[in-house]
Amino acid sequence: MRGDSLTLRGMRNLLPDEKAKLNRIESEIRRLFKIYGFQEVETPTIEPLELFELKSGEEIRHRMYRFTDLGGREVVLRPEATASIVKLVVQEMRSAPLPIKIGYVLNAFRYDEPQYGRYREFKQGGFEIFGTKSPMADAEILEISSRLMEGLGIKDYYIKIGHEGVLRAVLTNLNVEESVQDRVLGLIDKERLTEAFEILGPLPKGGEAISIIRSLWEIKSRDPDEAVRKAGEVLKDVPEACDQLENLREIIELAKASGVSGFLVDMGFARGLDYYTGMIFEVYVKDLKIAVNGGGRYDKLAGLLGWDIPAVGCAPGIDRLSLAMDEEAVPRDNLVCMIVSMVKEGDILAASLAGMLRMKGVPTLVDYTRRDISKALSYASKRSVKYVALIGGREVEANTVALKNMETGSQEELKIQQVVEKLSSHSLQRL
Amino acid sequence: MRGDSLTLRGMRNLLPDEKAKLNRIESEIRRLFKIYGFQEVETPTIEPLELFELKSGEEIRHRMYRFTDLGGREVVLRPEATASIVKLVVQEMRSAPLPIKIGYVLNAFRYDEPQYGRYREFKQGGFEIFGTKSPMADAEILEISSRLMEGLGIKDYYIKIGHEGVLRAVLTNLNVEESVQDRVLGLIDKERLTEAFEILGPLPKGGEAISIIRSLWEIKSRDPDEAVRKAGEVLKDVPEACDQLENLREIIELAKASGVSGFLVDMGFARGLDYYTGMIFEVYVKDLKIAVNGGGRYDKLAGLLGWDIPAVGCAPGIDRLSLAMDEEAVPRDNLVCMIVSMVKEGDILAASLAGMLRMKGVPTLVDYTRRDISKALSYASKRSVKYVALIGGREVEANTVALKNMETGSQEELKIQQVVEKLSSHSLQRL
Repeated sequence: MRGDSLTLRGMRNLLPDEKAKLNRIESEIRRLFKIYGFQEVETPTIEPLELFELKSGEEIRHRMYRFTDLGGREVVLRPEATASIVKLVVQEMRSAPLPIKIGYVLNAFRYDEPQYGRYREFKQGGFEIFGTKSPMADAEILEISSRLMEGLGIKDYYIKIGHEGVLRAVLTNLNVEESVQDRVLGLIDKERLTEAFEILGPLPKGGEAISIIRSLWEIKSRDPDEAVRKAGEVLKDVPEACDQLENLREIIELAKASGVSGFLVDMGFARGLDYYTGMIFEVYVKDLKIAVNGGGRYDKLAGLLGWDIPAVGCAPGIDRLSLAMDEEAVPRDNLVCMIVSMVKEGDILAASLAGMLRMKGVPTLVDYTRRDISKALSYASKRSVKYVALIGGREVEANTVALKNMETGSQEELKIQQVVEKLSSHSLQRL
Repeated sequence: MRGDSLTLRGMRNLLPDEKAKLNRIESEIRRLFKIYGFQEVETPTIEPLELFELKSGEEIRHRMYRFTDLGGREVVLRPEATASIVKLVVQEMRSAPLPIKIGYVLNAFRYDEPQYGRYREFKQGGFEIFGTKSPMADAEILEISSRLMEGLGIKDYYIKIGHEGVLRAVLTNLNVEESVQDRVLGLIDKERLTEAFEILGPLPKGGEAISIIRSLWEIKSRDPDEAVRKAGEVLKDVPEACDQLENLREIIELAKASGVSGFLVDMGFARGLDYYTGMIFEVYVKDLKIAVNGGGRYDKLAGLLGWDIPAVGCAPGIDRLSLAMDEEAVPRDNLVCMIVSMVKEGDILAASLAGMLRMKGVPTLVDYTRRDISKALSYASKRSVKYVALIGGREVEANTVALKNMETGSQEELKIQQVVEKLSSHSLQRL
């Protein structure tokens, strides 16, 4: 059997540099959990099929990894996290004080055609706030999304923002029923406007709906005030939609007050998931055509699972953020010492010194190979080790080591305890 | 639909306290990666069936989550990580300098009967060293296993250690072929000695094999020297087995030199996975009947995938370690400030203060609910918030906040900038 045929299409072996980059992003997300008071949870990778038949959207449903388990149950690998997180909150947190702020970092699975930045297994972070309709919660989600970009050193980004509540209010006002709204918004999301209008056309007030949506579709502006003013004119005869528009205005104003900028208001914007009911947004990075983060308000999803509480959240795509991050942002290994035992009699001394250094938290390698000293030093240099401790026959007798500074090339004979003292300033802090 | 029917048997919703505990263990594992110079990688959750048909052992193979994907390929969810990690190294790291030290933290899946400490989705950490047969590498794996326990504050543990190389040398010497060895060792692992002996009995030198294995089986001692001496007597006519025994002795001696203690040598010990060839061990905690960590040497597995390099490693069970950890060891939330805007006019001030505090890394909540002040304070106290910043009509006018110390109950009127200065000493350090 050959190793190279053994990884499935669309799946990845994440090697050390890439994994370090992803870990860096996950740490930043977890730092934001702490700063914004989100509590991290985890849901099962395998879930019953029914859970994702609720509101995940046609497109995702057809691309799920779905199978029958050994107990005969129809199951899927989670294609996204929000439905699972809502289920967890509904099942397990009914007695927690509201609002409930939940964070997660999970892998999700979709049988999509692999392409740049899209894999069949991918990593999602997430921030969800349950139990409040306050626009301050929507603004906080935008604030977090913005801080995440800054925390990762990504500067050239913008936030595309819209409001499904506005679009839904227009359609509801013209008596378009919810399932038809879902289909129409799904088509608008994919910019298949003609098809969306073909559905609306034959309906009693279809013409009116098409005209309003077409006008909203044309409102795209980096100046939120201008966009809101124009949309207000389009919507002046639909008071319910004006309320929704006012909600969007307020959210943007609050987000700006806490330091968020770079909005692109897009009044014709819709997202592929069926559950959104209010503000929606996506974060884009210059030169990268795919969104690196997205989310919005979904006030009815928890109710479908038995607890009628509103919610707003976002799900940064960790793999995509990694594409947007500078290579220099990858944290490097920080190996301080490599101990080389050149004679078998030195092994115990090497093991003992290694034990002492590591007990102090000093990153330390031991060379077990008894290879040529120049090869050992070349390995040390490839792994960016700062000091090499050499143990030969003379050192065993004197109970010392020859400590070589790899940067300066200088070398000194030291007692074990002296090495430990010298290197313990390089100790790794406990997290 | 009811939420509570929507989690599959053997699967878990990990709530904030449990997740914090698991995160604590994962952080400790990653700290050890750094101290011992392991580079973290990640392999796909979904792998081709063939990969685990190699050497995973009968028992695991029958309990895999196995299905046909939308492309018609037979796939499984990884039932353990080692085979995948070996594949990654063989596929992607042929040009890396040896030894290669690889770490991972992954979820694995087995359709087992759920019981205490056993779930159908579970978390494994891992440390694998490729490219050296040196007993120093085996000893390092034991050292790491021991440090992990100490790092988690688990004191009452012991390391059960044996050597499949000894058992295999005995069987090879008596012409028992490898596939039969795998079956016999699998049965010994499950303490089904009678069945193992029924397989050996009819073989040409079966009686001799049974007699040696029965004698080894009886050697179990907390004194390694004593165990090795006794085993030496049993094995005196099988020189190949004596070499393997000397290897075990040396590993234990090196591990002791770097500070490892608490061995229970068990000469009849075998493990369920077919790939072990040398030292094997498991870590047990008093009062917990299941192993919290285990591993050993597997020198032939990489060769089956096309790169013939030796290897040794271990895979701590993160869920099981969590059971062994004290509840007090769970890190708590550390919320510093909650801002309560009591009037709508205060919202912008609240958003702006929150933005400034969080930008400085100060863990901060904003109460969006405009609820009764006593309810807001009760929420703050439930989430262990240190300070509450109240914004009412008077504060909006004076551009101040009333900062209440939740511990002492004292309250003072401060300018925004004064609040930021006062609280910024509670800033969370960037990781």
